[in-house]
Amino acid sequence: MKIALAQLNYHIGNFEANTKKIIDSIHQARDNGADLVVFSELCVCGYPARDFLEFNEFIDLCEQAAQTIAKECTGIACIIGVPTPNNNPEGKDLNNSAYFIENGKVTAQVNKALLPNYDVFDEYRYFEPSTQFKCIDFKGKLIALTICEDLWNTIENPLYVTRPMDTLIKENPDVMINIAASPFAYNHDEERIAILKDNASRYKLPLFYVNHVGAQTELIFDGGSLVFDKDGKMVDEMPYFKESLCYYTLDDSGNISFEHESTIRGERQTDIEQIHQGLILGIRDYFSKSGFKQAILGLSGGIDSAVVCALAAEALGPENVMAVLLPSHFSSDHSIKDAEDLVKNLGCKSETIMIGNVTDSFEKALAQQFKNLPFNIAEENIQARSRAVLLMAMCNKFGYILLNTSNKSEAAVGYGTLYGDMCGGISVIGDVYKSQVFELAREINRDREIIPENTIVKPPSAELRPGQKDTDSLPEYDTLDAILVQYLEHRKSSAGIINQGFDEAVVRKVIRLVNLAEHKRYQTPPILRVSPKAFGMGRRMPIVGKYLT
Amino acid sequence: MKIALAQLNYHIGNFEANTKKIIDSIHQARDNGADLVVFSELCVCGYPARDFLEFNEFIDLCEQAAQTIAKECTGIACIIGVPTPNNNPEGKDLNNSAYFIENGKVTAQVNKALLPNYDVFDEYRYFEPSTQFKCIDFKGKLIALTICEDLWNTIENPLYVTRPMDTLIKENPDVMINIAASPFAYNHDEERIAILKDNASRYKLPLFYVNHVGAQTELIFDGGSLVFDKDGKMVDEMPYFKESLCYYTLDDSGNISFEHESTIRGERQTDIEQIHQGLILGIRDYFSKSGFKQAILGLSGGIDSAVVCALAAEALGPENVMAVLLPSHFSSDHSIKDAEDLVKNLGCKSETIMIGNVTDSFEKALAQQFKNLPFNIAEENIQARSRAVLLMAMCNKFGYILLNTSNKSEAAVGYGTLYGDMCGGISVIGDVYKSQVFELAREINRDREIIPENTIVKPPSAELRPGQKDTDSLPEYDTLDAILVQYLEHRKSSAGIINQGFDEAVVRKVIRLVNLAEHKRYQTPPILRVSPKAFGMGRRMPIVGKYLT
Repeated sequence: MKIALAQLNYHIGNFEANTKKIIDSIHQARDNGADLVVFSELCVCGYPARDFLEFNEFIDLCEQAAQTIAKECTGIACIIGVPTPNNNPEGKDLNNSAYFIENGKVTAQVNKALLPNYDVFDEYRYFEPSTQFKCIDFKGKLIALTICEDLWNTIENPLYVTRPMDTLIKENPDVMINIAASPFAYNHDEERIAILKDNASRYKLPLFYVNHVGAQTELIFDGGSLVFDKDGKMVDEMPYFKESLCYYTLDDSGNISFEHESTIRGERQTDIEQIHQGLILGIRDYFSKSGFKQAILGLSGGIDSAVVCALAAEALGPENVMAVLLPSHFSSDHSIKDAEDLVKNLGCKSETIMIGNVTDSFEKALAQQFKNLPFNIAEENIQARSRAVLLMAMCNKFGYILLNTSNKSEAAVGYGTLYGDMCGGISVIGDVYKSQVFELAREINRDREIIPENTIVKPPSAELRPGQKDTDSLPEYDTLDAILVQYLEHRKSSAGIINQGFDEAVVRKVIRLVNLAEHKRYQTPPILRVSPKAFGMGRRMPIVGKYLT
Repeated sequence: MKIALAQLNYHIGNFEANTKKIIDSIHQARDNGADLVVFSELCVCGYPARDFLEFNEFIDLCEQAAQTIAKECTGIACIIGVPTPNNNPEGKDLNNSAYFIENGKVTAQVNKALLPNYDVFDEYRYFEPSTQFKCIDFKGKLIALTICEDLWNTIENPLYVTRPMDTLIKENPDVMINIAASPFAYNHDEERIAILKDNASRYKLPLFYVNHVGAQTELIFDGGSLVFDKDGKMVDEMPYFKESLCYYTLDDSGNISFEHESTIRGERQTDIEQIHQGLILGIRDYFSKSGFKQAILGLSGGIDSAVVCALAAEALGPENVMAVLLPSHFSSDHSIKDAEDLVKNLGCKSETIMIGNVTDSFEKALAQQFKNLPFNIAEENIQARSRAVLLMAMCNKFGYILLNTSNKSEAAVGYGTLYGDMCGGISVIGDVYKSQVFELAREINRDREIIPENTIVKPPSAELRPGQKDTDSLPEYDTLDAILVQYLEHRKSSAGIINQGFDEAVVRKVIRLVNLAEHKRYQTPPILRVSPKAFGMGRRMPIVGKYLT
């Protein structure tokens, strides 16, 4: 039996484009002699469709798309993912389903049993979990078909009280197929491989796994679909961060062969290489799927905006990136020079707009109210907000989308101005710690100096008052980031972090800053997610809450 | 048996304050001869604690608080709500539990079975549902104790496949007690009464229901705890929007008596009366629980900011409200006069800051980039954003929180400037349609003219260009709001709405505008929720998604 795995990039709710893409792959797979082509979870509508799923019309359109696809599926079978109405009058309205399609008709339906409802996932908001499991008979082979999380219940730490494969295995299936929508985090590929390998070994069955690829606002799907043999050996690893259609032959003894050159990675990519590729895909899809081409950003001469500018130029083409220098009284000469060098290295567009007169006009307007009061954070924020108003005016006049350049460390401790440098349509590096931003700059510069060396080596500064340095009010970034990882990602208490050897006063200060900044993060743009715990939909904190560890 | 119901206002994660409040009520109830005092769902930590629940330390603090409370609970029994570790190694880490406490010890634990995971609720994110149900024996009476949603599975439209009371009733209990955290929406009191009445009648048991009161950022809890007799007759309705401790005597025949004057509402409050009270509580708690006293807002002379200003003055005291007039070249004389009249009527503080020089300075700074291009939305937005920068500078200098004054109709169609009039710490009327804002103004003026009549009767305008009116680009608000209710709250398709008799072009335009504004709403402040479907945590839409009905 020849099985094709279609790892494609869908657009949420774009039925026309998704349907066409699926049908094209069905035709292509049939022309290549495949018996079965497998698409990923909820492919007809894209994932996650979120509250679109609560509109009856949306569900009807999903079914119509599935029927259109079915009609084109002759001379080959396919598996597609589609949300379907729950036939049981009790429980939620929908199931997260897979359709098995043969001879132009849906011949079997499998519903997902294990519904992830943690971190970025909300599946229990929409779907009723399945409690019935049955294999699919196709050309003399019994297929144990499951959907993503259904294989994701580990023996050591079982998140769910059921395990669909434990029922399906009783039918003695010949092969496991799993369709998924498993979003990227820099450590997720290893976890995914380990869990799927464990399933193949435990049930002693070959396993074909098809994942989404492509970004949906903040969520990036990295592809990397996988094939395991019945001994749990990884037979193939499909490409990461791009579409792919691959063919595998499963013989009657359960052996798997294929003709293409395997894309199994000899050596795993580093975290930073993966983050780099993920962010490029994230930027590119955000623009293409929202129908925009041109990005704008403020270029300070610092490392954060330099890295974002370089990523944007790579993702969209330098001709589609407008870098705006917005110097104030407090901008250093080297900052302007560093920004100009970067623009030259990238070949992107640039403008310089002086903000001195604007900030002066604000201070004059407020002269009476602020009389005799010292320069403080109010005036610092006026600078950051004046820049935002200018950048947004450029967006409104010329149709740019503003890229936010805040990093995760800053976002964590609230080191940024709401409605100032925290503006933007999408936050590019808001899930990248400052220490990783430096690594990312080095990665970008691997072949040639794109980001000026001086930008990388000089001490970080917001340049909102004379001689300001980030370390005036924050610990060194290596220390800060290490504490943040413990608090944000491992959810340790301050006592637990202090026990690891960090200074007590620093730990308490950092955690306090993180908690006090919830109201700011609530109003920031969506953040491209690259870590297992990003700010945004995956971290939902009370704003007016008192708990401080 | 004398039962006390404690309807209290908790602060999320403020264990010291919550514990003290609970213990005070235990002592008071004991002094008043009660046998049992009942507190609401998850009262030890407040509701919803959201991802605080994922911190082990937070769960430990909940248990410590429960033990502190237990020690004080002698000579009386109590029921409190507390998150507890799930003892089953399979499934989620936590249960949403009720402790029954007697003689200083936890003598029984009940876990919630039906976990709401729709709209604003995310309980399946944290809790494993209970599958075991057992009554509690207390002083010869058998208590069927359930938690909120456990009674919320209607016969007509069952959202869940189990119904805890169907098991508990087999033990022949004497009384039902339900502890809840049921947030306010203007129609929710009627639904709540109907469902609880239905439970009392169906199981032929007296029912004591205790709800939270108080606001937690966007969620307002309205109290209104209820008592039903075994025939399903409402015996008492506790006050709405305020704390209360009431006593009831349940005799051996299941009859209920009490000595206080009943607060059953003869006539139900109107939607607008409820919204008015809800918003006052929402503002007051947002400020008190975040440790702020002083609000600021921009006063345009229009009805939205006038209503918000009046509500803020009522909630915080006029001495704690700073109204800032920020006239531009396009502000009409009557606007300034109307704003000044309001300030006078309220007795709040006010400042006037001219924005002409600021907007001029932006236009000069952009002169080269904008050369020969006509005035358009870019310049309009500069005005709105200049005002925001000035208001935020006042916040940063003096410690105000900015109140957002956008209404729900505007927020729906994106009629507002991101980082301009869409700024603020909390959105006061972001869940109130424009047509309801007019009613709210009349309600505020019920006893005397607070909001100038001219503010109410003049045609709404953003005054961002000469002679501008809202109806230049939007349908009349009555039509707009009627379409929005169908789309947002009833999730109708455009075809469905057009079938109701609305103009096709208008319907399509409105729905398109709503969908295109998702990226703006993503970055707006939390919105005080007063309707069954508010923007914010209860409505989770893709930003980069194509589906347009």
